[in-house]
Amino acid sequence: MTNSSSDRPSEFALIAQLFAPLADAPGAFGLLDDAAVIAPRAGHELIVTTDAVVEGVHFLADDPPELIAKKALRVNVSDLAAKGAEPLGYLLALSLPAHLSLEWLTAFAEGLRQDQRTFAMSLLGGDTTATPGPLSIAITAFGHVPVGQMIRRRGARVGDSVFVSGTVGDSGAGLDLLRGPRDCSHAVRDFLVHRYHEPRPRVELGLALRGVANAGLDVSDGLLADLGHMADASGVRIEIEAQRLPLSAALQAMWGDDLQARIRAATAGDDYELVFTVAPSRADGVMRLARNSTSISEIGRVVKGAGVVLLDDNGRAISTLKGGYTHF
Amino acid sequence: MTNSSSDRPSEFALIAQLFAPLADAPGAFGLLDDAAVIAPRAGHELIVTTDAVVEGVHFLADDPPELIAKKALRVNVSDLAAKGAEPLGYLLALSLPAHLSLEWLTAFAEGLRQDQRTFAMSLLGGDTTATPGPLSIAITAFGHVPVGQMIRRRGARVGDSVFVSGTVGDSGAGLDLLRGPRDCSHAVRDFLVHRYHEPRPRVELGLALRGVANAGLDVSDGLLADLGHMADASGVRIEIEAQRLPLSAALQAMWGDDLQARIRAATAGDDYELVFTVAPSRADGVMRLARNSTSISEIGRVVKGAGVVLLDDNGRAISTLKGGYTHF
Repeated sequence: MTNSSSDRPSEFALIAQLFAPLADAPGAFGLLDDAAVIAPRAGHELIVTTDAVVEGVHFLADDPPELIAKKALRVNVSDLAAKGAEPLGYLLALSLPAHLSLEWLTAFAEGLRQDQRTFAMSLLGGDTTATPGPLSIAITAFGHVPVGQMIRRRGARVGDSVFVSGTVGDSGAGLDLLRGPRDCSHAVRDFLVHRYHEPRPRVELGLALRGVANAGLDVSDGLLADLGHMADASGVRIEIEAQRLPLSAALQAMWGDDLQARIRAATAGDDYELVFTVAPSRADGVMRLARNSTSISEIGRVVKGAGVVLLDDNGRAISTLKGGYTHF
Repeated sequence: MTNSSSDRPSEFALIAQLFAPLADAPGAFGLLDDAAVIAPRAGHELIVTTDAVVEGVHFLADDPPELIAKKALRVNVSDLAAKGAEPLGYLLALSLPAHLSLEWLTAFAEGLRQDQRTFAMSLLGGDTTATPGPLSIAITAFGHVPVGQMIRRRGARVGDSVFVSGTVGDSGAGLDLLRGPRDCSHAVRDFLVHRYHEPRPRVELGLALRGVANAGLDVSDGLLADLGHMADASGVRIEIEAQRLPLSAALQAMWGDDLQARIRAATAGDDYELVFTVAPSRADGVMRLARNSTSISEIGRVVKGAGVVLLDDNGRAISTLKGGYTHF
């Protein structure tokens, strides 16, 4: 762990000690060097991705530190999952405001420790610096895929079916609940807030989709916005049937299940579910994958044209522009 | 380039377009995917390092954007150089305050473009997010080394000579000049401020030190603090002779060259010079390297014991505690 700033040296030395036990890969050198070594497994390539989360933007200041740590790591693991990669390790760049206590940081490290075990990853290195601003956590994550097997964003082909894992909109509803009092049961609240705090990267599903999915990505900006990226990159049009969007029972208890609720769910973002396209001949095989891991729903198809459209019950395109949904 | 936040989508789409031309490696996919692919060269390992820089901590808000970009990249390239790695590529996580203009960002991207050419690197991917705080730039850099040849922090051996490249203290003096009016010539000011804004990662020297240096790192926290890390990791004591520290003419014009000036230079930090140890039998060869790239000075030796000590002209240890210098 290097320290960019020497104005709080003894504090940063403590932090390095706190994180050193997380660096259990041989190439991490227990954080006692300036860089890490990664040698990809034979026949494999490294997949790398980076995502930063910022207090007040991606998490709230009073969120539990364990959960902030897990979310910072999981949004990156979710990218690895979407690409069909097996998680390997990560680098952590922390910008710390002065008010964070050692207790807070200890809990933060504990959250990382738990998730490293869950995802079989190791901390490979990092950097700690002071900031006069909010807490900011930038993680770079590494995974393995067999050479040439990364699931691409641009592979969607006309005729493909479009699938999504799990349910959409829960995280957005959870954030809504954290922002102010809403009328709902404890169970509904717990489920949705948990979905916001602890996204579940679909690593197993991603591995199973190698050589099966033609295109894939994880839903972070919102289902429709992210499918818009896929349509752009692939040079196709993607049609999604609102009625087929998978909504959790908790979300339906909050928002109902009418068209407005479905539009809201498809534009809420932060789902970290996988959305992917598959040739029709392989669609049955995909539904069988659902039995072994998360649920999977077929929600639309890839056609000629450009952009992404949401269709109502009568197959009419719904014209809507809303947060994150800029590709309509 | 992924965007963590959907509250400024059209701006972030512009930013992605701005950075896409920088992503000229095949595995970067022109930033049109969620992750990049890296396949290390045969017989080589990947060296990875991350360093974040924050406005108000590592650079000043009114520093030119090209120079901020270069410094953010170079502090990482310097880590690669210290490890004997050949630069390959980098990931960029940007946390942007709302006030930054497209002009500012265009100049920032131009700074990166120039430095990519200097160091033969490619942008491999990134993430842009909004922040209510200061501008923060987290870079993860990748380099190649032949398997097993990374220059380690912990390899210093009793009997080794200690060398440093270039001159020390210039960057600290440059920052001092930026913080308030000082009495000095334009030439002195230009030199020192330039040293602060544009560190020169010693990539060629790092490559030449593979198989030659027993231990190495780059000076970021301050020469003595960083040598303290090396001494700790190596289980040795490092003695530095104050009189042998290389000071630039500009620095001497500002601070003089007495013992106080030398202590200040050895604790100032942000030098991004390489400091390394070499067995006595190879010391002559090292001095020959100096003719081909940067200057190199022999400044001390590795002995039995612990910690780092600065010796005065009479060989007496100087007891001093000052910013970044906590290993005495």
